[in-house]
Amino acid sequence: MTYERENIQRMAGYQPGEQPDDDRVLKLNTNENPWPPSPAAMAALQQIAEDALRRYPSPTAAAVRHQAARLHGVSTDQIVTTNGGDELLRLAMTTFVPPGAPIGIAEPSYSLYPVLAAIHDSPIEAAELDAQWSLPDDFAERMNAAGVPLTLIVNPHAPSGHLLPAARISQLAAALDGVLLVDEAYVDFAPADHDVVGLIARHDNLLVLRTLSKGYGLAGLRLGYGIGAPGLIAPIAEKTRDSYSVDAVADAVGAAALADQDHARSTWQAVCDARGRLTRALEARGFTVPESATNFCLATRPPDSPLSAAAIKDGLKARGILIRHFDTPRLADKIRISVGTPEQNDRLITALDEILAAAADQPAG
Amino acid sequence: MTYERENIQRMAGYQPGEQPDDDRVLKLNTNENPWPPSPAAMAALQQIAEDALRRYPSPTAAAVRHQAARLHGVSTDQIVTTNGGDELLRLAMTTFVPPGAPIGIAEPSYSLYPVLAAIHDSPIEAAELDAQWSLPDDFAERMNAAGVPLTLIVNPHAPSGHLLPAARISQLAAALDGVLLVDEAYVDFAPADHDVVGLIARHDNLLVLRTLSKGYGLAGLRLGYGIGAPGLIAPIAEKTRDSYSVDAVADAVGAAALADQDHARSTWQAVCDARGRLTRALEARGFTVPESATNFCLATRPPDSPLSAAAIKDGLKARGILIRHFDTPRLADKIRISVGTPEQNDRLITALDEILAAAADQPAG
Repeated sequence: MTYERENIQRMAGYQPGEQPDDDRVLKLNTNENPWPPSPAAMAALQQIAEDALRRYPSPTAAAVRHQAARLHGVSTDQIVTTNGGDELLRLAMTTFVPPGAPIGIAEPSYSLYPVLAAIHDSPIEAAELDAQWSLPDDFAERMNAAGVPLTLIVNPHAPSGHLLPAARISQLAAALDGVLLVDEAYVDFAPADHDVVGLIARHDNLLVLRTLSKGYGLAGLRLGYGIGAPGLIAPIAEKTRDSYSVDAVADAVGAAALADQDHARSTWQAVCDARGRLTRALEARGFTVPESATNFCLATRPPDSPLSAAAIKDGLKARGILIRHFDTPRLADKIRISVGTPEQNDRLITALDEILAAAADQPAG
Repeated sequence: MTYERENIQRMAGYQPGEQPDDDRVLKLNTNENPWPPSPAAMAALQQIAEDALRRYPSPTAAAVRHQAARLHGVSTDQIVTTNGGDELLRLAMTTFVPPGAPIGIAEPSYSLYPVLAAIHDSPIEAAELDAQWSLPDDFAERMNAAGVPLTLIVNPHAPSGHLLPAARISQLAAALDGVLLVDEAYVDFAPADHDVVGLIARHDNLLVLRTLSKGYGLAGLRLGYGIGAPGLIAPIAEKTRDSYSVDAVADAVGAAALADQDHARSTWQAVCDARGRLTRALEARGFTVPESATNFCLATRPPDSPLSAAAIKDGLKARGILIRHFDTPRLADKIRISVGTPEQNDRLITALDEILAAAADQPAG
């Protein structure tokens, strides 16, 4: 017999991007930073003492909480540390959404959102993005009409890379009856003058998610944090968050990484430069690539190519290069490519040229 | 205004034991192993490469999962890795308990259980332990009558240290209608012939919790795992567990620690030896100390002492030694002392002698 709850029986789990063991495989499928973390972070790792592992860690991950507060110019009671950004998504549901109440999202977006909602036993209230990957004007009204206590927006958007301006986020927070979680997993690759953290003083329902997985090259460490008004942060930090959810290593290494802004910013700039070159190279081959404020590009296959987007992905995989393809109506003709180093992007483009040329040589079928 | 769910508003958060920054403070309050982790684990930490941090970790923490399966003689689909044992407690509720359905526990036990149930919005169905800290004979019948889908038993028991034999666990699993989670956080300090893992083949509702926090001296790393029938493990491992909840460092360091059984066992033996000496020293001073199969002792204050248990705890704290006191009816006259190294235990006993002598010199008040 099964002991699972009914909603768990019905649902399917999240499918993470492929993580191959083979070091020769070029991974442009899970939006990692192609550049390594800060040397200061690696030094902090080397300095972890036996006693730091033997003892329970700081229950609040105090070192990271302090550094994050300093970085954003807020107080520590406006920060909650989490085991990756994903833990904050779950905690926002646990804290603000009675099971059964709907969770608001835009479609398409991060495929984990509906999975977490299914675990929570909440339906999804989804609004389709417009052709420019922007929210419909009546988004907040629709969420309010559905009685949504929590809306999740990824900005810059995944998988398109589109950036909503801070003014639109402010408008949304003001218009929504419930909590607005802005998932800024990719914000480090957006223009530097984009800033929504300043809005938390004005909107007591605005929760900003940050992660060190992308911008700081620390996906393996599992560290994220939330920024919001103290009244929004307190129930998460003091009640629903798992005790000791951030370990002692993440606390020490993460704090060192946050403190080394020079290193982080240099990788963000390098990613943005490489993204521009990759975009132009894809466009030169007939792909359509909307402007991206992230470390990935969503490329629509050339309209005159005999190859489907799925076939391009498979062709690249056969050449040892992983990218992502989502087999959903709006995304079926597109591929998502994480921006690599210039050398990695060159390898991708070379392989792509081979695949496109081979297809052009085939008689039309 | 508040955006919290009603059940979250009503509840209070978990209170972890004090974690002082001052290295001179002797921490005998949170049941850490007084001996350091395996040198092999420290070596694995030193060998973490930049790329292991830069990339997402193994979604299943495959290295730990493999080692744990090997250690217990089960297959990897009978193991789920978690961010500390605490994550498994939460996941068991998420996976097996519809919010609102009761969660079964014995009282007293680990103070996190009712907190997790409150977050889950489930009532607690509690049965009082008998005078020997054992379960009442009709425990399973009472849980079944209340319609409990998940029962949590900590064995060896906290905070008494009492061990239920495997035969009683088997009887319970057979009798319970729902899932039985046996929290074996302290089992490494129990007699070596005690084994309930062998029971999972017979009971498809038996979920065994293990942690590396105590036995392996790795509380700072946050690593635990569950052992159970594949049908019990699969929905947790593939659906409700947070994606990547165990980081790359914990996967590598934890696997190395599990592989070094010789080191771990030597610390378990040392703890058991020190526990015997500590028990006798406490008994010589008039404390009553039940036999403990854990790395702590629950000591009832001498009946003729003018000092309350709380006053003893405060007196020790004033001397830089932290122990735990629970101000609840059954535990108010007791102190819980984590077993330290022989030197640490000597320091505790010396301080205790000072406190008891000073109190004896005071006129009765």
